[in-house]
Amino acid sequence: MLKTLRKSIKLVHYLLLAFPLAIAGSLLDWPPVFVFAVACVALIPLAELIGEATEALAVVTGPKIGGLLNATLGNAAELIITIVAIRAGLLDLVKASITGSILGNLLLVMGASLLFGGLKNGRQRFSREHAATNATMLVLAIVALSVPSIFNHTLEGETLPALTIEYISLGVAGVMIVLYGLGLFYSLRVSEHESPLTHTDQAAAPHWSPRTAGIVLAAATAAVVWASEILVHEVEAVTAALGLSEFFLGIILIPIIGNVAEHLVAVEVAVKNQMELSLEIALGSSLQIALFVAPVLVFVSLGFTQSLEHSLNLVFNQFELLALVAAVLISALVASDGETNWLEGAQLTAVYLILGVAFFFLPA
Amino acid sequence: MLKTLRKSIKLVHYLLLAFPLAIAGSLLDWPPVFVFAVACVALIPLAELIGEATEALAVVTGPKIGGLLNATLGNAAELIITIVAIRAGLLDLVKASITGSILGNLLLVMGASLLFGGLKNGRQRFSREHAATNATMLVLAIVALSVPSIFNHTLEGETLPALTIEYISLGVAGVMIVLYGLGLFYSLRVSEHESPLTHTDQAAAPHWSPRTAGIVLAAATAAVVWASEILVHEVEAVTAALGLSEFFLGIILIPIIGNVAEHLVAVEVAVKNQMELSLEIALGSSLQIALFVAPVLVFVSLGFTQSLEHSLNLVFNQFELLALVAAVLISALVASDGETNWLEGAQLTAVYLILGVAFFFLPA
Amino acid sequence: MLKTLRKSIKLVHYLLLAFPLAIAGSLLDWPPVFVFAVACVALIPLAELIGEATEALAVVTGPKIGGLLNATLGNAAELIITIVAIRAGLLDLVKASITGSILGNLLLVMGASLLFGGLKNGRQRFSREHAATNATMLVLAIVALSVPSIFNHTLEGETLPALTIEYISLGVAGVMIVLYGLGLFYSLRVSEHESPLTHTDQAAAPHWSPRTAGIVLAAATAAVVWASEILVHEVEAVTAALGLSEFFLGIILIPIIGNVAEHLVAVEVAVKNQMELSLEIALGSSLQIALFVAPVLVFVSLGFTQSLEHSLNLVFNQFELLALVAAVLISALVASDGETNWLEGAQLTAVYLILGVAFFFLPA
Repeated sequence: MLKTLRKSIKLVHYLLLAFPLAIAGSLLDWPPVFVFAVACVALIPLAELIGEATEALAVVTGPKIGGLLNATLGNAAELIITIVAIRAGLLDLVKASITGSILGNLLLVMGASLLFGGLKNGRQRFSREHAATNATMLVLAIVALSVPSIFNHTLEGETLPALTIEYISLGVAGVMIVLYGLGLFYSLRVSEHESPLTHTDQAAAPHWSPRTAGIVLAAATAAVVWASEILVHEVEAVTAALGLSEFFLGIILIPIIGNVAEHLVAVEVAVKNQMELSLEIALGSSLQIALFVAPVLVFVSLGFTQSLEHSLNLVFNQFELLALVAAVLISALVASDGETNWLEGAQLTAVYLILGVAFFFLPA
Repeated sequence: MLKTLRKSIKLVHYLLLAFPLAIAGSLLDWPPVFVFAVACVALIPLAELIGEATEALAVVTGPKIGGLLNATLGNAAELIITIVAIRAGLLDLVKASITGSILGNLLLVMGASLLFGGLKNGRQRFSREHAATNATMLVLAIVALSVPSIFNHTLEGETLPALTIEYISLGVAGVMIVLYGLGLFYSLRVSEHESPLTHTDQAAAPHWSPRTAGIVLAAATAAVVWASEILVHEVEAVTAALGLSEFFLGIILIPIIGNVAEHLVAVEVAVKNQMELSLEIALGSSLQIALFVAPVLVFVSLGFTQSLEHSLNLVFNQFELLALVAAVLISALVASDGETNWLEGAQLTAVYLILGVAFFFLPA
Repeated sequence: MLKTLRKSIKLVHYLLLAFPLAIAGSLLDWPPVFVFAVACVALIPLAELIGEATEALAVVTGPKIGGLLNATLGNAAELIITIVAIRAGLLDLVKASITGSILGNLLLVMGASLLFGGLKNGRQRFSREHAATNATMLVLAIVALSVPSIFNHTLEGETLPALTIEYISLGVAGVMIVLYGLGLFYSLRVSEHESPLTHTDQAAAPHWSPRTAGIVLAAATAAVVWASEILVHEVEAVTAALGLSEFFLGIILIPIIGNVAEHLVAVEVAVKNQMELSLEIALGSSLQIALFVAPVLVFVSLGFTQSLEHSLNLVFNQFELLALVAAVLISALVASDGETNWLEGAQLTAVYLILGVAFFFLPA
C-alpha cells in the first residue's frame, strides 16, 4: 500500500510537513500567528488528500455512488473547518466563509482560469447551453439564500416577533437541502452528461484500492479535524496580533485554504483549453456551498447551542450580499456569452481584489 | 343559446355554485372567513368566463380587434377586484396585488410549467429569441415601475417637497400607458408572430355567437363586481380573524384567484411541450400587469379620492422591490438560455414558497 | 489649409458662432443663463472638432497609434469640462456627470439608436458575440466602480477610520487605470476585430494633413478649456436662477453637450442598419468613462486640493447607483439577445426620461 501511495505523491503533499509543526506549535505554545500559519498550510494537502481518496473511491464504486460521494465530500475540508469554528462560537467567521467561498470560486478561480487560459489559448469558446443552465441554478440558489438577509435589512429598526429571522433561516435551509436532494436525483437519473453537483475527475484519481482509499480518507479527515481545532483555537490571538477582523479571516482566508487544490485544477484545465470543465468546477463548487454546505451548517449549529437565538442564521451583511449578487450575475453573463478572453479574467480578478480591499477596511 | 353554453361547460364552471353561497352568506351575515372563502372560489370561474367570452369575441372580430380585446380584458377580473378594493380604501392590498401578480406569474406559474413540463418531457428546448425579447421588455418595464420606490427609499428621512412621490408615480404611470399603447401598435402592425400583449388562444375559445359572448361577458363582469364587493367587504374581518396582514392577502391570494384559470393553461401547454407558448403566457401576463393594470389603477384611484395625497402611488416596500427584481432577472435568465428542465422549475417554485413565507412574517 | 478645412465643414460647425458670443457675454456680464446656454452650444462643435482631428490623425498614424489616440482623446471634451469643474470645486457636478454620461450612452443613445433604427429597418439583427463580450466588460467595470459607494452606504452611521473611503476610491481608480491599460494592450494585439476602446471611424475622418489636424486639435482643445471656464463660472448663478441643482446639471446637461456629436453618429449608423457599430459606440463610450475618465478625474482632483478629504471620491448616491446598475443590466440584456426593435428603443428612452424626471426632483 505504501508503494502505491508513494507513486501518487505530488508536490502539494510535501506541505504535509507543516502538520507536525502545527501540532508541536500548539502544544509548546509557539507564537499564535506562526501556529495559525502552519495549520493553514497543513490544511491544504489534507483537503487535497480527502479529494483524492474520494475520487479513488468514485472510480471503484461506479458513477452513481461516486457522484453521491463527490456531492457530499466535495467540500469536506471546508465543512469540517467551519463546523469546528461553529463549536468554538466563531459564527461571524463561519458566515463570512460561506460568502467568501462563493465569491472566491466565481471571481478568483474563474478569473484566474480565464486569465491564464486566455493568455495561453487566446479567445476561448465553449458550448454555452450547459454553463448557462448551471448559472441559472446558481442565481436561483443565491436568491433563495439571500431572502433572510433582505428580510432582516429591510426591517431593521422595526419590531419583529422574536426568532422570526431564525425561523426563516431554518425554513430556507430546509428548502435548500430539498433542492440539493432533487438536484442529486436529477443528475443521477440524467446520464446524458455530468452535473456540476456530482462531477468526478476520474482521470486525476490515484489508483488506490478501496481499502487504501478508505484509510487515507479516514486519516485525512481526522487530521483535518485536528488541524482545524488548532487553527480555530488561535483565531482570537491572530486577529488581535494582526489587527484583522474575524470577518476578514473568514471571507478571504478560510475559503482559500479549504479549496486551493481544487482551484488549481480549474485553472489547469482552462490552460488546457477545456473551458467547459473549468467553468463547471467554479460554478459547481459555488452551488455545493449554497445548496449543501450553508444549510448543513445551519442545522449543525442547532446541535451546539441551547437556544435558537445563538444558532447560525443566514443573515449576511449588506456589503457581502451585494458582492454575492454581483458575482453571481457576472458569472451568469460570462457563462452565457459562450466566449472568454484573458481581459475578462483580469477584470474578474480585479473585482475580487477590490472587494478584498473593501472587506479589509470593513469594521468588525 | 343555452345549448351552446352547455356544450362548453368545463369542470371549473361548477365552482360557480360558490357564487350564490357568497351572496347568501354576505346577506345573512355568515362568518366572514367563510363568506370570504366562497367569494374567492366564485371569482375563479367568473374570471375564466370573462376570458372565454373575450376569446370567443376575438375569433369573430379577427386578429386585430381580438388582440386589442385581449390586451385590455386579459386581466379584467383582477382589474375589477383591485378597483373595488381601491374604492374601499384598501391601498396596501392593491399595491401588494400588483407585485404579487408579477411574482406569481414569473415564479409560481413559470415554475410549475417548467416542473410539470420537465417531468413529462425531460429537457425542453425552445427558440430563445422571442422569449428573450419579451424578457428584455419586462426588465425595462420593471425598472421604470420601480423608480418611484427607489426614489422614495433612498430619500427616506429627508424632507421632500409635498406630493413629489405622487407626481413621480403619476408621471411613471403616464409613461407606462404610452409604452403600452406603443406596444399594442407594434404588435398589431407586426403580423409576423403574435405579441405577448395581444396573445389570443383561439383553439381554446368556445364557439359562441357574438351575442352569446357579449351577454356572457356582461353577466360575468357584473358578477365579478358583485363578488369583489363581497370579498373586499370581509377583508378587515378576515385579517383580524386569521391574523394575516392585508399585505399578505394582496400579495398571495388576490393574484391567485384572479388568474388561476390562465395559470393552468400555461402549465397545460408546458406539459404538451409547447414551452414558447407557456413562457409567453407568464411573461405576457406580467407585462400586462406592469404596463397596463398598474398605471390604470393609479389613474382610477385619482377618481375615488379628493386629495392626491391619498391616491394610489407606486411606492412598493423594499422587500417587494427586491423580490420583483430577482424574479424578473431569473425569468430573463431562464428565457435566455433556451432550455429548461424540471429542476429549474422546482427551484423557481421554491423561491416563490420562500418569498411567501417571508411575506407571511412581514409586519403590517 | 483653409481650403481643406472649408471642404469638411458640416452643419454642426455653424454652432461655433456661439463661441464668440459666450466670450463676449462673459466679459460684458450678460445674464448668466444666456452666457451659460451659449457656452453649452459652443462646446458641441468644439467637441466635434477634437473628434475629427483625432480621427484625421488616426488615419495618418495607422491603426495602433490611432487606436491609442482615440482611446485617450475619445472623451477629451468631457474630460476637460470636468477637470475645469473640479478646479472650481464643483465635485457634485463632476461626479454626477460620470454617471450621467454612462446613463446617457446606455439609455438615451442606445434607446434613440434602437428607436430610429427600428422604425427605418424593422426588426434588426446583429451578431451577439461581440456585443455580449463588451457588455460583460461593462458590467465588470460598473461593479468595480460601485464598490466605494456600496461600502459607504452600507456603513452609514458607523464610525469608519478617517479617509477610508478616499483610500478605497484611490485604490479602485488605480485598478481601473490598470484594467484600461490592459484593455488597450489587448485590443492593440488582437487585430482580428476592433475593440470598443480603440474604435476609429475612419470613413468619417476629414482628409487633413497631420499638421492641419494637429493645429485643429490644439486650437479646439484650447477653446474647450476657455468655454468650460465660462460655463463653470456661471454654474452657481444658473442653478440659483433656474432652481436646478448642481447635481441635475451634472447628470443631464454636461454629458449631453460633451458627447452630442458622437451620439448622433450612433443613431445615424443604426438607421443605416449597422447595429453592431451603433452598440459598440454606446458601450465603448460608457467603458471609456468608467475605466478611464472616472479614475483620471480622481487622480487629477488630488492635484487641486491640499487635503485628501476634499478630493474627488467615487461615492455616488444610492439612486444614481441603482440607475447605473439597471442601465448596465438592460444594455447587457439588449446586447445579448441579438435582436432589437423600435419598441425596445422607445422603452430605453422612456426609462431615461423617467430617471431624468426623478433626478429633477432629487433634493440637492
